Amino acid sequence: MTGDALELDRRERRTRGNRPARREGGGTPSLKVPFIRRNIPTYDILSEENLVRIEQTADRILAEVGIEFRDDPVTLDHWRRAGAEIDGVRVRFEPGMLREVVSTAPATFTQHARNPANNVEIGGSNVVFSPAYGSPFVMDLDNGRRYGTIEDFRNLIKLGQSSPWLHHSGGTICEPVDLPVNKRHLEMVYSHIKYSDRAFMGSVTAEERAEESIEMARILFGADFVDQNCVILGNVNVNSPLVWDGTMTKALRAYARANQAAVIVPFILGGAMGPVTNAGAIAQSYAETLAGCALTQLERKGAPVIFGNFLSSMSLRSGSPTFGTPEPAIGSMVIGQLARRLNLPLRCAGNFSNSKLPDAQAMQEGVMSMLSAVHCGANFILHSAGFVDGLLSMSYEKFVMDTDFCGALHSYMAGVVVDDNTLAMDAFLEVGPGSHFLGSAHTMRNYQTAFWDSAVSDNEPFEKWAEAGSTDMATRANKQWKKTLAEYQAPPLDLAIDEALRDYVERNMRAKPDAWY
Amino acid sequence: MTGDALELDRRERRTRGNRPARREGGGTPSLKVPFIRRNIPTYDILSEENLVRIEQTADRILAEVGIEFRDDPVTLDHWRRAGAEIDGVRVRFEPGMLREVVSTAPATFTQHARNPANNVEIGGSNVVFSPAYGSPFVMDLDNGRRYGTIEDFRNLIKLGQSSPWLHHSGGTICEPVDLPVNKRHLEMVYSHIKYSDRAFMGSVTAEERAEESIEMARILFGADFVDQNCVILGNVNVNSPLVWDGTMTKALRAYARANQAAVIVPFILGGAMGPVTNAGAIAQSYAETLAGCALTQLERKGAPVIFGNFLSSMSLRSGSPTFGTPEPAIGSMVIGQLARRLNLPLRCAGNFSNSKLPDAQAMQEGVMSMLSAVHCGANFILHSAGFVDGLLSMSYEKFVMDTDFCGALHSYMAGVVVDDNTLAMDAFLEVGPGSHFLGSAHTMRNYQTAFWDSAVSDNEPFEKWAEAGSTDMATRANKQWKKTLAEYQAPPLDLAIDEALRDYVERNMRAKPDAWY
Repeated sequence: MTGDALELDRRERRTRGNRPARREGGGTPSLKVPFIRRNIPTYDILSEENLVRIEQTADRILAEVGIEFRDDPVTLDHWRRAGAEIDGVRVRFEPGMLREVVSTAPATFTQHARNPANNVEIGGSNVVFSPAYGSPFVMDLDNGRRYGTIEDFRNLIKLGQSSPWLHHSGGTICEPVDLPVNKRHLEMVYSHIKYSDRAFMGSVTAEERAEESIEMARILFGADFVDQNCVILGNVNVNSPLVWDGTMTKALRAYARANQAAVIVPFILGGAMGPVTNAGAIAQSYAETLAGCALTQLERKGAPVIFGNFLSSMSLRSGSPTFGTPEPAIGSMVIGQLARRLNLPLRCAGNFSNSKLPDAQAMQEGVMSMLSAVHCGANFILHSAGFVDGLLSMSYEKFVMDTDFCGALHSYMAGVVVDDNTLAMDAFLEVGPGSHFLGSAHTMRNYQTAFWDSAVSDNEPFEKWAEAGSTDMATRANKQWKKTLAEYQAPPLDLAIDEALRDYVERNMRAKPDAWY
Repeated sequence: MTGDALELDRRERRTRGNRPARREGGGTPSLKVPFIRRNIPTYDILSEENLVRIEQTADRILAEVGIEFRDDPVTLDHWRRAGAEIDGVRVRFEPGMLREVVSTAPATFTQHARNPANNVEIGGSNVVFSPAYGSPFVMDLDNGRRYGTIEDFRNLIKLGQSSPWLHHSGGTICEPVDLPVNKRHLEMVYSHIKYSDRAFMGSVTAEERAEESIEMARILFGADFVDQNCVILGNVNVNSPLVWDGTMTKALRAYARANQAAVIVPFILGGAMGPVTNAGAIAQSYAETLAGCALTQLERKGAPVIFGNFLSSMSLRSGSPTFGTPEPAIGSMVIGQLARRLNLPLRCAGNFSNSKLPDAQAMQEGVMSMLSAVHCGANFILHSAGFVDGLLSMSYEKFVMDTDFCGALHSYMAGVVVDDNTLAMDAFLEVGPGSHFLGSAHTMRNYQTAFWDSAVSDNEPFEKWAEAGSTDMATRANKQWKKTLAEYQAPPLDLAIDEALRDYVERNMRAKPDAWY
């Protein structure tokens, strides 16, 4: 044993005697906040000159190729009135036009939660963590992979609500495929309201479902309040490349019309729905998102909107999409710079993996993509917890690992505080060379808030870890989600509101025939 | 299924038909380089004002508390002649004095490898990946954890040499505890030379062992060449807080005297060997490293030296050290900024974990710490591959995963190239809305170098993954290291040099009685 390991061994033996009293439980409660105000800068990787080249390419795409807006005449009318060139469903835009239209969108807005202590500010240097969204499957170590149900949906809401490290309840946390596709949004929105007191998202899969989601928010918050404040988000996808389909633009407009925030997200798998080179995919993503953001302003000037992106790569051996790889991580940083030049709130990346298990691959890919979201300055990080299986499955264990990692990111984004206390000159004068800091006044004063303390990592020496059962992280996470669900208690909800919501849900469930696809 | 997952599913089905021919094998060979020239900026998180406050605190520590230099009168003589204040073994320094002394060290230097194609440039925007160093234990999935042997040592050298994603053979890749402690350096240095043709490190655990390591380099490169060029590194640890012991300063001076590079590394576990707050621990680390770097210049002006650091945190519940946590990751960024203000090559962080298995925790912690090393601008990243168990074990499987991740970082550090080809305007004009890019001329021209392709991640759909045995990443890595060792071929070594080295090793093995501690 030499070098660092020798030092470690020597010091560890020496320091295990005199140390401050143990802190109970993991998770560093002092870091808990309703959302993060980042104390570290964004990581700006591209020069002004190169950012301008990307914007100019996006302008050329918008002017020379254009975007198709299918199955939504109202949207075409909007564009016509705004001065775009309409050719069938193809719309072309003069350079700079969309940046002008989008300038009425707010740089920052508050999304209200039914518990006002959980309101989130989206934009600026704020960061909001929201769980993963949209997987048809769920998995856990006991039962493997299967289609999600409304029971899984509720379980995952409860796990999210129980974590101090998420800030938002999310939306389609998994697909409850045991409910008809045309009705499940009712139970999903109800479950968010019932089992969480955080902000949430509604449906976008049909205009009617978007409107019913918003209507349920009106029952909860009051119609006047909803007209003046953001209380629900809708995540709309571009049908890349360069197509907005009517389902999405109608949902987008439903949210904007109600003064609620659409999250505009192209899904670009480089080489398939966009160019195989990052710069071109970024230019396309910028163009597609910009058009969606601008459309919200034509529907209702001043409506909140979030500039999103979803770049991914593909395995050129198998043709499969890949996630948590370096190229989209770097791409997010550029998208972040571009969004800041538009002065819009940003959604980027999230915690993605293509692993089919909550294993080393899952966290390698997850951490790389999640850190890129943090570094690029994303304000709303959808998919912060749970995804495996290339977006197709929500893993109960990975959900627990990821929310724990979100906790670590609270500490990471607190950065380095430099003041007389943290510089610790008094400690150096007290301790001096060759002694240790464990019992020093400075340590006693600061140790309780000093370091992030994971609830699912094992930091014991090898022998103690072996005695405790030689568990891996997934096994510990399995134990933890069961404990959390067993101990879960729903936040109180006004009885009259609960009844009104149940009445709305059941009335609408009865009013339509079931549709299953 | 809604939103992103729906998009994915829809596109994946659509795109699996017409695509470019499969690329054989993983790993993206086009990225292979002898070392990385970073094309992304450093991530500078602290303001000039706060950096100056940290430097001023370091100056106060050096002037008011001082550093003890034990059991090495020559070092005390150096300091006396340089104008420091000597009080027994305690040495105090006027503010600014050490920065003046260290200014003769080179900002960048070349470390020569026996294969000149593998020479590495250390400093500037260059990045060199070197495997982990110093663990007494090794582990693999078949045989669990046990003490390392010279056979393990050779196996790990071979695995390193076989990976295109490391640039350096490292040093004590594991401790060969089956050899006497006073002789094992001879077989270690010989193994690096024999089984790798990359640059390597020598012993530091005694002055004699450092000198014998350098002597073997002279046999390989010629004494005159070694006197004028760096061919071997020595990693020396500060006995934090604020103590340099004689073993380390004598080894440091042996390397500097021979014009070889010492890597100067305080090992600070916040709350034990340094303050529990990051800013103070950084100031201490800066002071300790600066003193070591300056000492190399007093031994031989102009000798190369690397400014290192090793900050870690502790679990305040158990008192155990923690690795790959957010605080040291953030701390590295600040150390990087400080080292650049000194114009010295930098070593920071590496791939650390406290997990006892190559599991999700191992990669979560490893990726966080490794990305901090990349972002902070580290030039020489020791511990790039293999560590688990809080520095105490080298894992064969994690070694494979980490070298694969080093490959991903080649792509990450290539950043975003912005030019007419990557902006892909021709592809947008060719493909247009609603079609796909798989068969486009732009894709055909670029797909072979487009994306990082991992050799141990699984990117297949769930069903294909299940059919192939439902493996986790550790299982795939286990298979891979066995295959790599089976296929390993030693790089050719001049027979006369090999014989001279064997003769030197065996002569010195016989000349001394065995010592086992």
